[in-house]
Amino acid sequence: MSNLLSHDVERSPQKKARQVEIEFDMPSNSLCNPMLTDMYQISMVYAHWLNEKVDQQAVFDLFFRKCPFNGEFCVFAGLDECIKFISTYKFTESDIEYLKELLPNAKTGFFDWLLQLDCSTIKIYAIQEGTAVFAKTPILRIEGGLGIGQLLETTLLNCVNYASLVCTNAARMKIAAGPTKSLMEFGLRRAQGPDGGFSASKYSYMGGFDGTSNVLAGKVCDIPVKGTHAHAYVMAYTSISDLNVTTITTVQHGKDVDIEFVQLVLSKRAELGYNDTNEGELAAFISYAQAYPTGLLALVDTYDTVASGVPNFICVSLALKELGYDSVGIRLDSGDLAYLSVTARTMFRDVDERLSLGECFVNKSIVASNDLSEDVILSLNLQNHDIDVFGIGTNLVTCLKQPALGCVYKLVEINKTPRIKLSQDLEKLVIPGKKSAYRLYGENGRAVVDVLQHHDENPPQVGVKMLVRHPFEESKRAYITPYKVKPLLTLVWDGIRSVNSTATNKTEQLCTPIPSLDSRRSQCLAEVAALREDHKRSVNPTPYKVSVSESLYKFIHELWQENAPIQNL
Amino acid sequence: MSNLLSHDVERSPQKKARQVEIEFDMPSNSLCNPMLTDMYQISMVYAHWLNEKVDQQAVFDLFFRKCPFNGEFCVFAGLDECIKFISTYKFTESDIEYLKELLPNAKTGFFDWLLQLDCSTIKIYAIQEGTAVFAKTPILRIEGGLGIGQLLETTLLNCVNYASLVCTNAARMKIAAGPTKSLMEFGLRRAQGPDGGFSASKYSYMGGFDGTSNVLAGKVCDIPVKGTHAHAYVMAYTSISDLNVTTITTVQHGKDVDIEFVQLVLSKRAELGYNDTNEGELAAFISYAQAYPTGLLALVDTYDTVASGVPNFICVSLALKELGYDSVGIRLDSGDLAYLSVTARTMFRDVDERLSLGECFVNKSIVASNDLSEDVILSLNLQNHDIDVFGIGTNLVTCLKQPALGCVYKLVEINKTPRIKLSQDLEKLVIPGKKSAYRLYGENGRAVVDVLQHHDENPPQVGVKMLVRHPFEESKRAYITPYKVKPLLTLVWDGIRSVNSTATNKTEQLCTPIPSLDSRRSQCLAEVAALREDHKRSVNPTPYKVSVSESLYKFIHELWQENAPIQNL
Repeated sequence: MSNLLSHDVERSPQKKARQVEIEFDMPSNSLCNPMLTDMYQISMVYAHWLNEKVDQQAVFDLFFRKCPFNGEFCVFAGLDECIKFISTYKFTESDIEYLKELLPNAKTGFFDWLLQLDCSTIKIYAIQEGTAVFAKTPILRIEGGLGIGQLLETTLLNCVNYASLVCTNAARMKIAAGPTKSLMEFGLRRAQGPDGGFSASKYSYMGGFDGTSNVLAGKVCDIPVKGTHAHAYVMAYTSISDLNVTTITTVQHGKDVDIEFVQLVLSKRAELGYNDTNEGELAAFISYAQAYPTGLLALVDTYDTVASGVPNFICVSLALKELGYDSVGIRLDSGDLAYLSVTARTMFRDVDERLSLGECFVNKSIVASNDLSEDVILSLNLQNHDIDVFGIGTNLVTCLKQPALGCVYKLVEINKTPRIKLSQDLEKLVIPGKKSAYRLYGENGRAVVDVLQHHDENPPQVGVKMLVRHPFEESKRAYITPYKVKPLLTLVWDGIRSVNSTATNKTEQLCTPIPSLDSRRSQCLAEVAALREDHKRSVNPTPYKVSVSESLYKFIHELWQENAPIQNL
Repeated sequence: MSNLLSHDVERSPQKKARQVEIEFDMPSNSLCNPMLTDMYQISMVYAHWLNEKVDQQAVFDLFFRKCPFNGEFCVFAGLDECIKFISTYKFTESDIEYLKELLPNAKTGFFDWLLQLDCSTIKIYAIQEGTAVFAKTPILRIEGGLGIGQLLETTLLNCVNYASLVCTNAARMKIAAGPTKSLMEFGLRRAQGPDGGFSASKYSYMGGFDGTSNVLAGKVCDIPVKGTHAHAYVMAYTSISDLNVTTITTVQHGKDVDIEFVQLVLSKRAELGYNDTNEGELAAFISYAQAYPTGLLALVDTYDTVASGVPNFICVSLALKELGYDSVGIRLDSGDLAYLSVTARTMFRDVDERLSLGECFVNKSIVASNDLSEDVILSLNLQNHDIDVFGIGTNLVTCLKQPALGCVYKLVEINKTPRIKLSQDLEKLVIPGKKSAYRLYGENGRAVVDVLQHHDENPPQVGVKMLVRHPFEESKRAYITPYKVKPLLTLVWDGIRSVNSTATNKTEQLCTPIPSLDSRRSQCLAEVAALREDHKRSVNPTPYKVSVSESLYKFIHELWQENAPIQNL
């Protein structure tokens, strides 16, 4: 389905090279630097510095408490930008000058400390990008000094939250559309500014979309770029006489030959009796075909889809056909998309029959756009639409149903002492301590449960029955005998490697190279396919269980007892 | 109210200089360049180029069809980035190389044309940033070649849509909170990546917020930066013995003097009988006070707001007071914010009475955060909360209630011929032709109606009765005798000035300098204050009327008759 929209592009070796260069260097956005943080991170770290705590060894977990979109899964994305941020972390002199204005009473030693700070003392453990993740399981575990660990919070959250949200949204739309349909991202104009649009294009592609309209994202990330034309193009023509060029350039025997095209189209129009169609629209389609003889995908709803747009498209396509070119199809951007797609397909079938063209028109591509969403696609499915490609903008990039993923970043251990955050809200409890996370699989190869443990507990063993518990609710516990055990968190950044070895460059600190966007996309598609169907349902999906070991359960509840004050009633 | 949160900053002259430098130079985001566009813009322009149409004179309108948030007003923002984009518009050689890959069959002359393209042949008319705008009124009118005009569409929409949306959201929250409350933007971690967060900070401030937590936005845009501390800070301390430093540095007779502070706090705690509070939390507040003796704003809900957080804050504040420092206040981040704010205020009043402190505690600032929104603030108002400052993140930056503004960019005239776009959906009709827009005011000085006219009609006259009509509905028309008439669209960019004059730099092309962010903020506050109350209601607001002159009304309907095909039933 990859050539359903015009201007599909071969991936050239040059572009691959370009991608790698950027992937391992700076963050995609120059704004993504240590100053892109909340003031309180810097305020807190100054107080820690003053109290000689910045070098205390701390562990932070990054996780979310609830899957997005009333769903029961999320796809992790954004690790690439996290690593690029980490690997280039450095305050500039100008940053320090500004921070001195913000903290006029702070001691100068603090600013000296900030100026030399980088991420060469931290380790980051992460789940692989494109993996399905669930509430409470740590996605990132950051180990290192309390100071630097605290300073990373906001930017890491900023890099993970939206990336994972839009990737998950894309994956859900892919599920809704089904495996035989193509999905295009058209959201740049409605995203949160330039790199809202850029991130949306990148992570939608990772989530399973087939291309984007965003040229910059195509250039930087090697995503297939697609596009047709807009209403403005159609409106730029009022009549056939607006056509300054009436010929089309075709190649015959290796040579460019100009052939009269307008008269050919008009003769087809007369033959079919389509005399009442809008003439400006016809002129626009002709001119588009002149520019893209092999790529005509016509937007047919500027004046009237059935009475004008589709007939005009058929006229121009017939003329192209006579010259040996196949047009691509049509795009619908308003009205009843299910009805119009079925009607257009019927008109195509009728032309095939009337002119004995075989299956020339009936297999043309029908693209639909206009406020599509997961729910609209599911509703169109019920109406037996005949759409081949969905172009989705606003609802994809804004994640209308839930426009923010609530990842948080919590201190769970300091100086090897686990820390707990209590809260008036039970669901805001944090699972304390440095933890490992495992995914346990059942006999059928499907994931059954995630288990969090103390990092020094023995991992779950294949074939060995173990008790797993809900971290907070005493009544929820179960036995499981795993058929496969997968450790979820792996070391992706080891700043210390550059100090302890002869390594001098950042790729040495990067333990696992960042996979290409295409391989992360494949990972995501495979992960989502492997999820149990009931976890993926759009309505009332079954929750996937994230549990803790018996030992961690006991520990959490002892620590809670110790820390929660008892009120006097 | 500007010093209610700690780390408020004086605006220094250096920062003003920095702001101006950036304001008139490059877009804030390096991603904001001519490649940040939809592929179809480039495809269409190639087809236009081939048909020798790129230099035809065109007029495009940028407008929206529905005010956001079920409201009846919107505040225009984002013109600054539009102008920066326009003034630096230029494809690079590397861009052209990539575009050649995307359009392998395009003639090379097209790429030569693209490479020399800039915005020196266009004019942009715009409404002033910070002005209240309404559905259908053009916000920007772009005049120039069809090619360059078409190429600007996506990026201009990207720059205007989110900026105006979040600015309007901020303005609505300001209305909900009321004039005596302060509002802080805390949304960086939930925004759409780095400059989603950056734009949110900038345009929320413009909409009436008092500060941001975003350090980078503070540095670049000269916005007051605020911050307190997080739960992680409290959790970094388990007991008093974690305090590596027990003194506080005060200034006496111009000299730094270290005074024992921990014992002083513990003596206050014993005096008040607050023995059951969490000791780690107390240690954290002590250390924060040591770092910021004049800026203690304590997050009090880590363990228990009433039983631990507020009492610990009181102990530390009393010790600070003895040394001559006033603490700032507390922040609530969970639980029943109305109840907790009232309870905390009562506890403050009680301490004042018990220790005969006058109004020492009762006037401390109470900051609330945790999923606040316009609706939550309105609900808190009904419960008689006692909150002074609202810290708002997710709901502000994601614009949860409506995460995209639907601005569109439409061709309305070409070669002096007005163009109309019909549609299956009546509301998607476009008002054709190059138009002027006027705001008409009534006797009380309030805006009554916007009138769109042919650009060559005589402007509405003060004191002269005129007929205004709904653009599409025949039954809606009215007379008005304006007391004041304000032209809405003014020339902000005149590319041709550089050709016709001796000007060599871009500021010559900029007809109106971009006002500072502070003056745009003042404009916005004044505009919103001047709006009629019924247009600002959160529920069922009265629609503001956008109308057309009698002459334009007739013209629209004639053109519609001409262009709409008549179906055979």
